[in-house]
Amino acid sequence: MKTRIEVEPELIEKLEDIIGNEWVVTDKEVMLDYVADETAPTVCPEPAAAVVLVKPDTSQEISNILKLANQWKTFVFPRGGGTGLVGGSVPTENGIILSLERMNRVIELDRQNLMIVVEAGVTLEKLMEAADEANLLFPLHPGDEAAQVGGLVACNAGGVRAVRYGVMRNYVKGIDVVLPTGEILSLGGKTLKNVAGYDLMHLIVGSQGTLGVITKVILRLYPRFKETATLIIPYESRHKALETIPNVLREGITPLAIEYMERGLMEESAKKLGKEWPVKRGKASLMIIATGNSKEEVYLEADRIDKIAEQYDAIDTLVVENRRKQNDILSIRSNIYLTLKPYIMDVLDVAVPPANMEKLMDELDEIAARYGMYLPMVGHAGDGNLHPHVLMKKAGGAKEEDLEKVKREIYSATLSLGGTITAEHGIGKIRTKSLNDFLDKKTIGIMKKIKRVFDPNNILNPGTIIS
Amino acid sequence: MKTRIEVEPELIEKLEDIIGNEWVVTDKEVMLDYVADETAPTVCPEPAAAVVLVKPDTSQEISNILKLANQWKTFVFPRGGGTGLVGGSVPTENGIILSLERMNRVIELDRQNLMIVVEAGVTLEKLMEAADEANLLFPLHPGDEAAQVGGLVACNAGGVRAVRYGVMRNYVKGIDVVLPTGEILSLGGKTLKNVAGYDLMHLIVGSQGTLGVITKVILRLYPRFKETATLIIPYESRHKALETIPNVLREGITPLAIEYMERGLMEESAKKLGKEWPVKRGKASLMIIATGNSKEEVYLEADRIDKIAEQYDAIDTLVVENRRKQNDILSIRSNIYLTLKPYIMDVLDVAVPPANMEKLMDELDEIAARYGMYLPMVGHAGDGNLHPHVLMKKAGGAKEEDLEKVKREIYSATLSLGGTITAEHGIGKIRTKSLNDFLDKKTIGIMKKIKRVFDPNNILNPGTIIS
Repeated sequence: MKTRIEVEPELIEKLEDIIGNEWVVTDKEVMLDYVADETAPTVCPEPAAAVVLVKPDTSQEISNILKLANQWKTFVFPRGGGTGLVGGSVPTENGIILSLERMNRVIELDRQNLMIVVEAGVTLEKLMEAADEANLLFPLHPGDEAAQVGGLVACNAGGVRAVRYGVMRNYVKGIDVVLPTGEILSLGGKTLKNVAGYDLMHLIVGSQGTLGVITKVILRLYPRFKETATLIIPYESRHKALETIPNVLREGITPLAIEYMERGLMEESAKKLGKEWPVKRGKASLMIIATGNSKEEVYLEADRIDKIAEQYDAIDTLVVENRRKQNDILSIRSNIYLTLKPYIMDVLDVAVPPANMEKLMDELDEIAARYGMYLPMVGHAGDGNLHPHVLMKKAGGAKEEDLEKVKREIYSATLSLGGTITAEHGIGKIRTKSLNDFLDKKTIGIMKKIKRVFDPNNILNPGTIIS
Repeated sequence: MKTRIEVEPELIEKLEDIIGNEWVVTDKEVMLDYVADETAPTVCPEPAAAVVLVKPDTSQEISNILKLANQWKTFVFPRGGGTGLVGGSVPTENGIILSLERMNRVIELDRQNLMIVVEAGVTLEKLMEAADEANLLFPLHPGDEAAQVGGLVACNAGGVRAVRYGVMRNYVKGIDVVLPTGEILSLGGKTLKNVAGYDLMHLIVGSQGTLGVITKVILRLYPRFKETATLIIPYESRHKALETIPNVLREGITPLAIEYMERGLMEESAKKLGKEWPVKRGKASLMIIATGNSKEEVYLEADRIDKIAEQYDAIDTLVVENRRKQNDILSIRSNIYLTLKPYIMDVLDVAVPPANMEKLMDELDEIAARYGMYLPMVGHAGDGNLHPHVLMKKAGGAKEEDLEKVKREIYSATLSLGGTITAEHGIGKIRTKSLNDFLDKKTIGIMKKIKRVFDPNNILNPGTIIS
């Protein structure tokens, strides 16, 4: 990659004029927290050396910064919570890091319309709390609660509840976005339906900070479900576990989550937390969360699921109703990532049509065997999204020189099953080559032209999505 | 509008070479069915004189036709079921009408993934039947069952069930689309989540045949609900009726439909059908459809709704469980459009944040009073979408010369309440001026550039969305 400009003192002065000295940071120590995200170090791109960090407080300040950057042809890297897994926010060129952290206000909780209006820097944690205080629910839970709303929208995040609630796109009703040329657009609003022209909002959703900087978001909220139960359903056969799923869904039961998990991995993760995985039998398990407005409703749903699972040779289902114990199970599930983290070379994010999950896992087994490696698979089985964790050699994983080949084989297998190389993590900076390899040239050609419509000087988050 | 080209014999010959003589139609009699849609004659644009109708059978044929048209700079007007209300498919320039009617095959009903793959020319009626045969449900019901899937997607259609099920966008998982330059793109697929680059599919949804011709669609299906009950809840006060709605939704009850209706209009519509409107009291009513998997479930939901309505001074609620009687009510509701049709100057399609529906109706009353006109309002009250029917003077409506002023005032009132000029009908050809007047110039500027990315010679459905 080429360096187009160094951070010149004059640029810093101009930035200080826009947002004040205290919000323009050049201290290298501070900067360390802003030049990486959660991407595994093996694949995370190198940050550029000459970067300046700005922390604007309003859309207008961001507009002024972008106008300046556009005039100077300086790269700008918008940054939310830094929880991404594909280097989407890493500043790979000299330029400006634009952190949304100060824009963290809940602007309005609208109980009448069941909506919340927040600034982009509001964290998922704060969003959930605000909804909760109003006795309402933000239905999704896309992983790390330090993620910020702007980032969640920019990445069209998913998470474990997608099987019932879908992805961020389904909840975004309006956004304010500052274009690289400085224009501030308000798209959508509190209406539930809107077909006034091309839906630019839905184009910005998922564009990973390459078309504009999202500054404000209107999200739809829902009434809360009152009770949940977590089912752990063990199976000797992975195939039987996966076969259960479409049969549950076809019965009109849509659980909050349907996760596939391997017992060995769960036990390891539990151990790291000083806890015990509560199920001793079966190689493969489904974790299914049933919900309802009363204990009876939850019990009925759990019972229906259990009866279906039995038909597919499930071993004794564990139904956990105690809230603390349910949280324990979820924390063990979440801790898989931290358990494996020191050994991870790359966490993939492939998805296939849900019914092809079995075939995909079989193919992955074959690939793993071919490379003589252990390939842990954690997956949102209900929606066909699997996260194969490619580990380092020292943890029984792949040789570093094989990483690209392994990924290529996994992507090929996924695409031949009608799948996609990324379901919820995004392309970011580390998957642009794969996008080019696996998406057709015509589609990519249109994407490049759309990038140019919004960002004629290519200043915003370069190297992300568009290579 | 300028005429750029006449239909030359050479063009017709070339079209015949592509799809065969029998599918190239120039007969003026036949053409009459292809140059208008359901738009009220008062506002429907005049069709051009020199048009040729083609009926291709494959995406490849459409690609060849578009390549030819692009080379010749001939306008092309894609056409689905012709059920639109904003002139979106009316050929307002000399050129080619491209009907999708032959591409009406159900390609696959995928029970494992709960999806259906259809060609764009499949009608809503056929789609519903195909889902039904598989004991599954296509959840939306966007009005006229003669509408075709391609058109429903191109218009991001809504309908009475949007309060629970949202709009077409929520069900479209993949599309094949032929660009005006002839490229065939396959976007999305049977995956439930996909963030591999900009979401071009979601940009095509709602673009009303101006960015490409949709030829194939993958739609998500759902398990069927088994039972329904239709509640007619009469009120003396419109305000009380509307106040009921957010309180139902906040309780976690999401009915299949929540429609607002005025008794006078319903009685008139029933009379035209030789039926009787079953409710004799109250000026305003809500029609709410409760659903469930058993009669008990439906009864419980109906009872909860009724109890909430009572708190807002509802008069005796009528609960109709008999299927035939429920259908009668729905047919009376649907017949409003036909009852008013001979007198309609324009059916508007405004939407506001649902809780602002009351205020919008008050404003519309004032506008109606100012113009001394009767302004029937039929509305999807649950999602804030209202269809004010601007009638002709002879039916107690507005003077023809006032129509533009009336619309302008209605749009102004809508926008000042945070609304949109069109929720589900689209901009088509008759609302481009209003879009220009009421949407900001910067947003329209981006839309125009996007149009150019897809359609550099502006051959596809000119005058629609982009004026």
